[in-house]
Amino acid sequence: MADSKMKSPDTFWHQPIITRESRERQNGHRGAIIWFTGLSASGKSTLAHAVEHKLHERGVRTIVLDGDNVRHGLCGDLGFSDEDRSENIRRIGQVSKLFLEAGVIVLTAFISPFRIDRSRVRMMVDDPRDFIEIYCKCSIDVCESRDIKGLYKRARKGEIPDFTGISSPYEIPENANLAVDTSRLSVEECVEQVIRTLQDCGVLPIEI
Amino acid sequence: MADSKMKSPDTFWHQPIITRESRERQNGHRGAIIWFTGLSASGKSTLAHAVEHKLHERGVRTIVLDGDNVRHGLCGDLGFSDEDRSENIRRIGQVSKLFLEAGVIVLTAFISPFRIDRSRVRMMVDDPRDFIEIYCKCSIDVCESRDIKGLYKRARKGEIPDFTGISSPYEIPENANLAVDTSRLSVEECVEQVIRTLQDCGVLPIEI
Repeated sequence: MADSKMKSPDTFWHQPIITRESRERQNGHRGAIIWFTGLSASGKSTLAHAVEHKLHERGVRTIVLDGDNVRHGLCGDLGFSDEDRSENIRRIGQVSKLFLEAGVIVLTAFISPFRIDRSRVRMMVDDPRDFIEIYCKCSIDVCESRDIKGLYKRARKGEIPDFTGISSPYEIPENANLAVDTSRLSVEECVEQVIRTLQDCGVLPIEI
Repeated sequence: MADSKMKSPDTFWHQPIITRESRERQNGHRGAIIWFTGLSASGKSTLAHAVEHKLHERGVRTIVLDGDNVRHGLCGDLGFSDEDRSENIRRIGQVSKLFLEAGVIVLTAFISPFRIDRSRVRMMVDDPRDFIEIYCKCSIDVCESRDIKGLYKRARKGEIPDFTGISSPYEIPENANLAVDTSRLSVEECVEQVIRTLQDCGVLPIEI
């Protein structure tokens, strides 16, 4: 293979780039970041997975980002100080944006207690349809009574520092696209509300 | 909606999880990490985008991770010291693994000069088909003669510290799945070699 094959070194460096739009056409739907926020045990991860299940069944490309696949991996070097929480959310926002570029609907399930961090992620995207904030509304009493992982118990004993709702603040969203009452509704009802919101916001077509 | 709707608090917390296998069935192909490594201007990004173009045309779900969408975002807080380079590759490896879980073929185009960092990413995956290392083989003379971004010139002047190949080492892969000679082959020929490698490794079916 001779060097002469390369007509110009410059041409070597220019290739068609596959755009987000092209991926969305391939997938048959828009990409979007669906951002679930709320206290520990408020149902974020459950709801995100349940919504994903519904969407996947309908041929939608999805991924859930939650503590299980992020806190032990990408953000394994971060703790729970205010600074680390912000960096955690920043990285998750950036990864979500990459999935958005891939035309995927990414569902994130993190406490994300600080308004400014959530705003920063919202500001990363251009189109309002790209970032849908869903507040999993659930009183701390109900969350604490669930306490599946025994975290509240340990936090009350002072064994977990900076625990949201107990020793670290949670800032309730003021402009969430949906506040879903996970303390009173069934998972199915919550899923229905989320899907309707995604349709109302123009993320999903009505017939999905 | 009464609380009685929730038969057991436990059931609230268990939802079917969509698996990687289920996404791969939906996509019609395996997910994989295709890891391009080589000097600056060795053709990594060009080749990754050209391979993506070919795959996208055939309905394969893909994403390219390169300096353009990672160094200014997820890794915007990192410089080019040995430590920062390692952390850069660690994060890219973790993000690639998330795309792998999403059933996507992720093509990464980073110098990734250190063998140990590339090995660490390889060790993140279980199946050898999940991580395919492609060495963009190109002498420093050829890379320097291209120097599209003028980086080598600046590095020679000492304006860029820790520049791979000049003031920072590049460790040539010993066990790459493919070493593609980007200094002698056309982009099309390189793409062909990569696609054949993906078929030989069992990432893509033969007929793709």
